[in-house]
Amino acid sequence: MLGVAVLDKLPPSVSIYEVSPRDGLQNEAAPIPLASKLELLHALVASGLRRIELTSFVSPRWVPQLADAEELVRLAEPPPGVTVSALVPNAKGFERALSAGLREIAVFMSASETHNRKNTNKSIADSLHTFAEVVKPARAAGLAVRAYVSTVWGCPYEGDVPVGTSLGIARELLELGCYQVSLGDTIGVGTPLQTKRIVEAFLSEIPAPQLALHLHDTRGTALANALVGLELGICDFDASVAGIGGCPYAPGAAGNLATEDLVYMLEGLGVPTGIDLDLLIEAGRVAENVLGRRLPGKVHQAGPRTLRPA
Amino acid sequence: MLGVAVLDKLPPSVSIYEVSPRDGLQNEAAPIPLASKLELLHALVASGLRRIELTSFVSPRWVPQLADAEELVRLAEPPPGVTVSALVPNAKGFERALSAGLREIAVFMSASETHNRKNTNKSIADSLHTFAEVVKPARAAGLAVRAYVSTVWGCPYEGDVPVGTSLGIARELLELGCYQVSLGDTIGVGTPLQTKRIVEAFLSEIPAPQLALHLHDTRGTALANALVGLELGICDFDASVAGIGGCPYAPGAAGNLATEDLVYMLEGLGVPTGIDLDLLIEAGRVAENVLGRRLPGKVHQAGPRTLRPA
Repeated sequence: MLGVAVLDKLPPSVSIYEVSPRDGLQNEAAPIPLASKLELLHALVASGLRRIELTSFVSPRWVPQLADAEELVRLAEPPPGVTVSALVPNAKGFERALSAGLREIAVFMSASETHNRKNTNKSIADSLHTFAEVVKPARAAGLAVRAYVSTVWGCPYEGDVPVGTSLGIARELLELGCYQVSLGDTIGVGTPLQTKRIVEAFLSEIPAPQLALHLHDTRGTALANALVGLELGICDFDASVAGIGGCPYAPGAAGNLATEDLVYMLEGLGVPTGIDLDLLIEAGRVAENVLGRRLPGKVHQAGPRTLRPA
Repeated sequence: MLGVAVLDKLPPSVSIYEVSPRDGLQNEAAPIPLASKLELLHALVASGLRRIELTSFVSPRWVPQLADAEELVRLAEPPPGVTVSALVPNAKGFERALSAGLREIAVFMSASETHNRKNTNKSIADSLHTFAEVVKPARAAGLAVRAYVSTVWGCPYEGDVPVGTSLGIARELLELGCYQVSLGDTIGVGTPLQTKRIVEAFLSEIPAPQLALHLHDTRGTALANALVGLELGICDFDASVAGIGGCPYAPGAAGNLATEDLVYMLEGLGVPTGIDLDLLIEAGRVAENVLGRRLPGKVHQAGPRTLRPA
């Protein structure tokens, strides 16, 4: 078997899009004080993260935890070089994001009809129509727009989702003017061969910089799937410090891929991220303090590789 | 990047060596009843596992939890085709294992002097000398002997361990008559590129069937490392149902790679293991009942890929 090409090509660097303030906190039942959200943000920025999804301009009736979106954006004051963004479900959310002064927004939809309807109360066609009315004015106003396509690896209601369906949606979102589509393994069912097939199908039509992977570690496969993505040339990954969020089925169980686990693997691969792992682990501890419980990511618990006295 | 060979060669099947009854239970403080150990064993056998490390013939003063080794072996009654084995630290342990009627034993040592001394109170040279006095009579008595080399990916006291040191030890153990050497990432620091370098170094001198990987998921990288091993031709992996054991630093944190997580990934890769994932998940639940707490493996918590009603 020697001579097989394994890890022979890796991207020269990776850009991580941090989702913990939004995706990590949105499902928390207890209200989190604004000061705690800012503390988490500052810890994330201190670690070197440069792209952070801060909140969501959905209706506070849907997500009460993020009802302070305007105030959080106003107080965030990201340093030069750091972009904060927010999720936007429709034209009204876009207007709020624009008024708040954001320079980047993200739109989101599912590749499966049932999941899209359950999550957004819209058909896929209606979502695309809604986002046409968001992306175009956003681009005209000079905002960058990112897009999520979820359930690409599988839907909890429909099972397998044809990659052609996901790819068609991604193409439409890019044509609307989104700069990047993040492909979501929303329920964390992905395995490496499936990841290879999905990523290769996308890369046959869309250049790598316009793609990101949003992997969940629900079944422990997130880093193995990320590795396959890296080998195929993907250099943008979503992650959430300490693995918070991503709708895990039980407290302490894994949802989102933990940012520190991803950075640990990338450091071992020699792929730079611009992130200081020790400070990122600190940010994971801040997240644990803010949420008041142990969180599922592993490297913030185990620590980086350190020596014990003999 | 299209055209890069990723996952192009995978082994036609994988053999899993299950360590939960020994490695998983040895550090439990509360005594576990013999009946519970047998219940776990039977659940593991029912799932299709065919190689199970049942216990250890170390001194009960070292590992009180395994003081029932003789009785457990006597009551195990593995069905045809299932091999149960036990860890053996020295000639006395070998005599006990032989008297108990075992047909396979395992010897163990570390690739780092400090870890070997802390773990076994011997130098590496003394360990090799001790095992010469175990493996030869064991082979003469018709027993199969497996060997563990730990800290191959790094030592908690010495840091990096030169691969040449691990390889030299593995070669000596194979020359003594061991049929396979299991290479341990004992503290779970391994990353994929390091795994590639280690596995390639071993495969340049030792055929794949004489090698196994014993990976820990302490930092979330076990499946990514396993994937690299698979791509290089490794087809034997150690694992522990529900991820029990492997000296995790905190309760609920990850030590050993969870068998069900490995099998889930292998199923997705289309690599047969002979194991029924649903029954393996059941065995993980038995392990949780036996230990009375949630265990770190993921697939036994999340379940295999199933559909929810829409």
